[in-house]
Amino acid sequence: MDAKDLFDSACPGREVLDHLTSRWGVLVLVALKDGPLRFHLLRDTIGGISEKMLSQTLRVLGRDGLLDRFVEPTTPPRVTYSLTPLGQEAVTHLRGLVDWIARSAPDILAAQEKYDGRG
Amino acid sequence: MDAKDLFDSACPGREVLDHLTSRWGVLVLVALKDGPLRFHLLRDTIGGISEKMLSQTLRVLGRDGLLDRFVEPTTPPRVTYSLTPLGQEAVTHLRGLVDWIARSAPDILAAQEKYDGRG
Repeated sequence: MDAKDLFDSACPGREVLDHLTSRWGVLVLVALKDGPLRFHLLRDTIGGISEKMLSQTLRVLGRDGLLDRFVEPTTPPRVTYSLTPLGQEAVTHLRGLVDWIARSAPDILAAQEKYDGRG
Repeated sequence: MDAKDLFDSACPGREVLDHLTSRWGVLVLVALKDGPLRFHLLRDTIGGISEKMLSQTLRVLGRDGLLDRFVEPTTPPRVTYSLTPLGQEAVTHLRGLVDWIARSAPDILAAQEKYDGRG
């Protein structure tokens, strides 16, 4: 598949683009970059995510082969999530974007103020 | 701002993350990487986008300072969109992600089939 195929509405990569570029998808993947985390720690790390949205995001990214899920047979079971090698590759590209957003936020906010006639 | 600030739900960079990582935001920015395009050509390039969604995406990215809008005083007016220097920086990072998705699509689709019990 070539990057320009993503311009085709029938391209299966479109669905992957949606998963990888959902707000929560990006934050979950980046949160796992330094190592595995349990569900509740992920929830506490990512401000504003609901348990429902986190479960759904983890399921979608797991189905895409980007995350592994490890269940310890304790009572209650402990569930830990980690990046697969494919997920680690994805994070490499997402981190560049996330770092750029953080670095460029002042310029972008200034542009928004100017656009809104506040600047 | 630091990349980890994006984990804070009150971080203004969250909004930028949403814009830059919307399906249509990514495709509009990447479509403009080789030079300015008029509205109708953008619409034709990006399969599946409606004129309404394209207008809305262009407005949001323009407000973020990522796109310039040039209106020629013809009848009807010709409107052309191009990346600003800030938009060009954003595209650098998005292209890495988009190229990786295109390259990794077979692995991701295989993971999905396995997850769904079809593999």
